[in-house]
Amino acid sequence: TRNIELAVVAGDGIGIEVVEQGLAVLEAALTGSDVKVSTTPFDLGARRWHATGETLTDEDLAAIRTHDAILLGAIGDPTVPSGVLERGLLLKLRFALDHYVNLRPGKLYPGVKSPLADPGEIDFVVVREGTEGPYVGNGGALRVGTPHEIATEVSVNTAFGVERVVRDAFARAQARPRKHLTLVHKHNVLVHAGHLWRRTVEAVNAEFPDVTTDYLHVDAATIFLTTNPSRFDVIVTDNLFGDILTDQAAAITGGIGLAASANINPDRTAPSMFEPVHGSAPDIAGQGKADPTATVLSVAMLLDHLGLTEQSQRVEAAVAADLAERGSRVRSTAEVGRELAARVAG
Amino acid sequence: TRNIELAVVAGDGIGIEVVEQGLAVLEAALTGSDVKVSTTPFDLGARRWHATGETLTDEDLAAIRTHDAILLGAIGDPTVPSGVLERGLLLKLRFALDHYVNLRPGKLYPGVKSPLADPGEIDFVVVREGTEGPYVGNGGALRVGTPHEIATEVSVNTAFGVERVVRDAFARAQARPRKHLTLVHKHNVLVHAGHLWRRTVEAVNAEFPDVTTDYLHVDAATIFLTTNPSRFDVIVTDNLFGDILTDQAAAITGGIGLAASANINPDRTAPSMFEPVHGSAPDIAGQGKADPTATVLSVAMLLDHLGLTEQSQRVEAAVAADLAERGSRVRSTAEVGRELAARVAG
Ligand SMILES: CC(C)[C@H](C(=O)O)[C@@H](O)C(=O)O
Ligand SMILES: CC(C)[C@H](C(=O)O)[C@@H](O)C(=O)O
Repeated sequence: TRNIELAVVAGDGIGIEVVEQGLAVLEAALTGSDVKVSTTPFDLGARRWHATGETLTDEDLAAIRTHDAILLGAIGDPTVPSGVLERGLLLKLRFALDHYVNLRPGKLYPGVKSPLADPGEIDFVVVREGTEGPYVGNGGALRVGTPHEIATEVSVNTAFGVERVVRDAFARAQARPRKHLTLVHKHNVLVHAGHLWRRTVEAVNAEFPDVTTDYLHVDAATIFLTTNPSRFDVIVTDNLFGDILTDQAAAITGGIGLAASANINPDRTAPSMFEPVHGSAPDIAGQGKADPTATVLSVAMLLDHLGLTEQSQRVEAAVAADLAERGSRVRSTAEVGRELAARVAG
Repeated sequence: TRNIELAVVAGDGIGIEVVEQGLAVLEAALTGSDVKVSTTPFDLGARRWHATGETLTDEDLAAIRTHDAILLGAIGDPTVPSGVLERGLLLKLRFALDHYVNLRPGKLYPGVKSPLADPGEIDFVVVREGTEGPYVGNGGALRVGTPHEIATEVSVNTAFGVERVVRDAFARAQARPRKHLTLVHKHNVLVHAGHLWRRTVEAVNAEFPDVTTDYLHVDAATIFLTTNPSRFDVIVTDNLFGDILTDQAAAITGGIGLAASANINPDRTAPSMFEPVHGSAPDIAGQGKADPTATVLSVAMLLDHLGLTEQSQRVEAAVAADLAERGSRVRSTAEVGRELAARVAG
């Protein structure tokens, strides 16, 4: 028997509800196999911060590091000043655990209604850089609250950081039927960072000669995501552009209730983290209204990352079947989770 | 008689073609009135750069300053290194002439097909800050081309700069029936800049008590632009987010062939500049395929800015009528321009 040690950070709001269902489906996927999961819940997020003022201590981080993977629900709460939990917990995890590949599929499953009149076939994946760019927390403010305030945010991009994520994106493109990679940036304005990205894509392309590439400015990318999303296969982009494009990608493929993500450390020097793209949704928290599907698809990505390919495919197939038959049925978070678990168990 | 001195920067690619039609419609709008336009063409863009290495000299800028307004086509050409003309010409004009209000309507005209299945009524305006943010050109690169390269881009935001554009946006919201202002930023990650924007909106709201406000993270804004664009009235946002959202806004309202913009200096210390949102489109340049409608709508904004309200409305009405009857007819750039001019002349 193989034992998987899973750190569980349910977090805030609907995070708690969807993670419960994600875990149930994970259990179902492993039932009857010789793989066992032990979960360690981590009390992180708004409750903990209110009680102790802590977001993520060195001890928390050290404890999380001993696990094989992390399942995360959602972080953020209106009762906590904006940025405290995002920067101090969610982003701290991504940065400390070197999750430099933030993987976000954009896939329109059969049966799912897209808000686009003619969505075509949508099946791409965004490789969002996860440890650099405007997310580094480099910047500050002077004379805050005065008419002379100045606030800066610094986007930091390194050859080391860009090259490793670009190489990962090329490898993913190579493994897909269309073998196409689109770099998204804004190199006509953000010339220093943009040219580093562009040169890196050109250089790494030599290692993957059968992958074709193109380039889009981020503004143009939002147009194509609206008018012709089928054109995309693999997109590689920086942390902020990736944040924006993957929410738009979720919107055209059935909404953030379905959008999964994986924060991957490809070198496996620390556990990777799997989480739905959506936030903690305080407006519907605690009402059993959240769709756990995004978390369940993130669980499929987790299984795949752990080499449990058959189980991963079983979970994705269960979601695909559920989506195909879902129609306009209104179900609670728990009902969706239960039905998905039942399908996975077969 | 009133004489309007118009600086014309046709620029590159289709810029030249669409500006020609924009000027024809402008002529038509003023025919029979006591307002005359004298145009001064400025040879700026790729041709000039290739010939002289110049993008925008101090003399060019001084000459442009003496005009009442600027009509610009599009800047950028694949034969010029990326960023040279954008930073050295287009953005230099916006910054030097203090175009701190970059105004971009998102309006779905009757008869125009949106790629959204259920677009609803779309009629909002984006007030994009034009002189700060990640566009300031502050940043640089070290050890370029080595494995130790580091490239930074600094977003600079000042109380002065944010407050003036936020106040302008509130005034625009106040003048509209719905009186609603949405701030778009990413204050949970870009905490310094984001909190400055947020505090500023809260503070300036006191001067406009009948304007309601809300806030969206930029990623969430791309979702609502897909699923419920009717929710927007006035959006105020920074230079980069505004760039991204206005291309997406164009995509849902019939494409960048229709998207107009105004770079406004509300203090009138320098001429304002009117330009279509689209770029120079090298792939279709010189073929008479470009739609001049975005430029014509920008001319309507120009007329409005100059206080020629009746003429502005006539131009917009001509476009609206043309769009309502356009169907799938394929016309050349010149044909569209000619028909619009004829409608405007009445
Ligand atoms: C909550 C926030 C910090 C986060 C991000 O911006 O990365 C979220 O939007 C996401 O996409 O995972
Ligand atoms: C050409 C480019 C510099 C410009 C911008 O980014 O502002 C364009 O995309 C626009 O929106 O006017």
